[in-house]
Amino acid sequence: MRKTVFSVLVDNTAGVLDRIVGLFSRRGYNIDSLTVGETEDPKFSRMTIVVRGEDDDILEQIEKQMAKLVDVRDVTELKSGESVCRELILVKVAVKPEERHQVSAIADIFRAKIVDVAVDSLMIELTGDEGKLNAFLALLSEYEIKSLARTGITGLSRGL
Amino acid sequence: MRKTVFSVLVDNTAGVLDRIVGLFSRRGYNIDSLTVGETEDPKFSRMTIVVRGEDDDILEQIEKQMAKLVDVRDVTELKSGESVCRELILVKVAVKPEERHQVSAIADIFRAKIVDVAVDSLMIELTGDEGKLNAFLALLSEYEIKSLARTGITGLSRGL
Repeated sequence: MRKTVFSVLVDNTAGVLDRIVGLFSRRGYNIDSLTVGETEDPKFSRMTIVVRGEDDDILEQIEKQMAKLVDVRDVTELKSGESVCRELILVKVAVKPEERHQVSAIADIFRAKIVDVAVDSLMIELTGDEGKLNAFLALLSEYEIKSLARTGITGLSRGL
Repeated sequence: MRKTVFSVLVDNTAGVLDRIVGLFSRRGYNIDSLTVGETEDPKFSRMTIVVRGEDDDILEQIEKQMAKLVDVRDVTELKSGESVCRELILVKVAVKPEERHQVSAIADIFRAKIVDVAVDSLMIELTGDEGKLNAFLALLSEYEIKSLARTGITGLSRGL
């Protein structure tokens, strides 16, 4: 299914997240990932919303309805090539002491950081685009992944 | 105001994000940041929700109500010291050619990555905890920040 990434600039108010998320869920559109954080001006937040779907008409409707909400300042579609999209993941891997250096070597290849070490687990932090993160997780799949937390994608358009 | 970080494991269904966000907004609790992404098992997503507030009773109510939702599998509070929390930011800085190496030097100090260069701007990617990101943004504040996108915090508890 086609992936669409929206970057939405909103007023930093209680309820705006609710209204935007509601626009998607009422149409049965499952949000793949959503990130939201304050911008350079704390009055505004920027949301990055990733959805998958084939129905361009419905997506166009949702985009227009988002733009009409009073707390929404701007809606942009982030297109690949014209934007930079990144995600951060934290992954906790169960490792026996004798496996630790193998997992550590995989982390090195991807320039990932080991952020916590326990007797029988490692926690690794990695950032990148979707392709890089998926390649990393595929390599780790021969180990037992205890837990995985992804921020979801955030992005900005290229150039000024 | 006190910051509380919830890690919420949910079924990966349309509508669950809506219901959780609604619990906060109906009580006037502004969500500071929210990240959501698939876990190691694609049937589930993990949300990390950061709220600020002083009213522990209301937060405790919200926590209990989240745990009662049918699509919610687990609610944990991520406490500092017992967990690792990280965020990713992308920041686009307007730079004249003669300033480029100064901004690039700031990026180096924080081990940030320059992910896009235009004639009169740089885009920088940085990950870290709140303190590191704020220190970086404070240093950049003497330049013109064109846009800032933050993923919001994601986190996992330490140990197995």
